[in-house]
Amino acid sequence: MKRIAIDMDDVLADATQRIIELYNKNLGTNFNKTDFDTFDWHELIVPEEYLSKVRNILFEPGFFASLAVIPDSVEVVKKLQKKYEVFIVSAAMEFPNSLLEKSQWLDKHFPFIHWKNRVMCGDKSIIAADIIIDDHTKNLENFKGELPLLYDAPHNRKITDYQRVTNWKEIETLLL
Amino acid sequence: MKRIAIDMDDVLADATQRIIELYNKNLGTNFNKTDFDTFDWHELIVPEEYLSKVRNILFEPGFFASLAVIPDSVEVVKKLQKKYEVFIVSAAMEFPNSLLEKSQWLDKHFPFIHWKNRVMCGDKSIIAADIIIDDHTKNLENFKGELPLLYDAPHNRKITDYQRVTNWKEIETLLL
Repeated sequence: MKRIAIDMDDVLADATQRIIELYNKNLGTNFNKTDFDTFDWHELIVPEEYLSKVRNILFEPGFFASLAVIPDSVEVVKKLQKKYEVFIVSAAMEFPNSLLEKSQWLDKHFPFIHWKNRVMCGDKSIIAADIIIDDHTKNLENFKGELPLLYDAPHNRKITDYQRVTNWKEIETLLL
Repeated sequence: MKRIAIDMDDVLADATQRIIELYNKNLGTNFNKTDFDTFDWHELIVPEEYLSKVRNILFEPGFFASLAVIPDSVEVVKKLQKKYEVFIVSAAMEFPNSLLEKSQWLDKHFPFIHWKNRVMCGDKSIIAADIIIDDHTKNLENFKGELPLLYDAPHNRKITDYQRVTNWKEIETLLL
């Protein structure tokens, strides 16, 4: 059985949308997803002038728990389990306070993913799988498996080095 | 640079010793490490009659934070980093409440291990490394790298299938 490693943020959980909402609410801005074409939310929380205003919100309990599920992901992941060994792999070690919340988020939305098939890591080059689905090229670059798939996100639109998937229906067609 | 995946509980952190202390304190028993020759503490928390009495203690905040560092591990891991890519890999997803504490425990005792080199997982067959050091044979069985090392523990004394290391000084001699 081939193994798939599936990312969480912006693949299963809509982190970008929530970040934009928090930005707009706290900074009085009016960002929308197209404004994020050249960078991702990890970069957004780095600049000092923003960081000081939003970090308490980003790091306070409830942020990751509040993320919406990406459409069709639950149904398609469930179907993938019949043909593949499915692992959820999140680079969550950067945000230690997110670890429990991410586990609980999976319990709530993906209860059919056993704890044995969940990974919270940092550098994803340590992941051994046949297929990986991720929105960050840094997680695909050192992937040793046969099929790295770039999940479409505003911050990766200009990347042409990887096969792109734009939604879960497309993943279903491609892999099932 | 070759990559080493190092387990936490009973390799870096003395979980068995703390479990025995809690058992004795809460059940009025007088266990010591040699009583654990045939099973490990994961099994100990399963039987219902014990579970009901100790689970609150095992799952309450502070358990993993309180674990002592295995002798010489800090110094040897630091030396290993000069020759190897060192990753800490803990099968912590079974205990979601341990995730933050384990991260903080590493911050405290192994601050030189970057978050990128930390992994909290379930089934370790997803780990790609050249060398793995672990006290559980289930984590060595499906290892694809060249050198699986069994870290000596009361519950694995009868295992003869793997090269055994009994302490960190021995690991230093073997790998450096």
